[in-house]
Amino acid sequence: MDERLGQQIQFAIEIDKLKGVLRQTLLADGSRQENSAEHSWHLAMMAMLLQEYAPKPVDLLRVIKMLLVHDLVEVYAGDTFCYDLQGNLDKAAREAEAAEKLFGILPALQGLELRELWQEFEENATANAQFATALDRLQPLLQNRETEGATWKMHGINAAQVRDRMSPVQEGIPALWPLVQQIIEEAMEKGYLKE
Amino acid sequence: MDERLGQQIQFAIEIDKLKGVLRQTLLADGSRQENSAEHSWHLAMMAMLLQEYAPKPVDLLRVIKMLLVHDLVEVYAGDTFCYDLQGNLDKAAREAEAAEKLFGILPALQGLELRELWQEFEENATANAQFATALDRLQPLLQNRETEGATWKMHGINAAQVRDRMSPVQEGIPALWPLVQQIIEEAMEKGYLKE
Repeated sequence: MDERLGQQIQFAIEIDKLKGVLRQTLLADGSRQENSAEHSWHLAMMAMLLQEYAPKPVDLLRVIKMLLVHDLVEVYAGDTFCYDLQGNLDKAAREAEAAEKLFGILPALQGLELRELWQEFEENATANAQFATALDRLQPLLQNRETEGATWKMHGINAAQVRDRMSPVQEGIPALWPLVQQIIEEAMEKGYLKE
Repeated sequence: MDERLGQQIQFAIEIDKLKGVLRQTLLADGSRQENSAEHSWHLAMMAMLLQEYAPKPVDLLRVIKMLLVHDLVEVYAGDTFCYDLQGNLDKAAREAEAAEKLFGILPALQGLELRELWQEFEENATANAQFATALDRLQPLLQNRETEGATWKMHGINAAQVRDRMSPVQEGIPALWPLVQQIIEEAMEKGYLKE
């Protein structure tokens, strides 16, 4: 096997570890924590389903690529819970180190392509990244609704925290902002979420 | 929320069930069975990584869409083990019924788009589908190598069965056929796979 293909196959095996990185969100049936690989699949599916609501034209292939790779660095850096203030202090440094190690497995140009997709997602400055980020915020909200606020209750999260976390939906998929607000209000009414 | 968006959101929640559909393949670290959602993510990643080895030009967006949706009908039909002769007898009928029910949740044209992607994958007649199918065969082979043939040993699978199962790689990604043969030969030498 030539060196280039060997690196690509090694990378394909290495990223299998993302299936073992657990998030704080539960599956919609509440049976277990979601892992970052199946989460990434779900977001890519949602990009296909909801592209028509992007407020600016998006390149669906680039959005999907971005969503497929957006959590890859977690294979070394682990998942950082979005409401964990302490964990988020050194998140960027841990993930930058992980990116160096992980994307370095690949042939240089291909590693760079994936790294740039990840960075574009992180910087959240392009229309593609803003649409992708909105989906990344929306999906756990939907699953929290299905599980009667399981993650929120477990960590004592309040409505202001969720509203703040969801704010990128206003820019990335404004058509879905009313749904976000409705879910938050209902969750408060039902006691899934503290005021 | 308008009806169209409501159907799309309902579908996005319904497909969460794919994370609970277990395959016979184990994760590369052998810790547990793989589910069909994370498997689909892994294939979409491999399409990005290995596109250059497609023998005919492929439309990467279409290939990735196909891989994201290729197992969706399993949310109702379950995963059918590829070496299960009995289960494969009525697989097509069970999956067609599941497709009717699942894609019927979506607005008509969008449901049709996803259904056509799934059918194109199943028929395996286009360059896009053949590349996608080759990846779908290759990925469990790599994971079986990593787990010392766990699935093969568990079910008493032999080399001829695996060779037959892998044959679409010859057409879909011929450049990877030598690797497939090498993995099968090594697996026989090490006793992971029966002659």
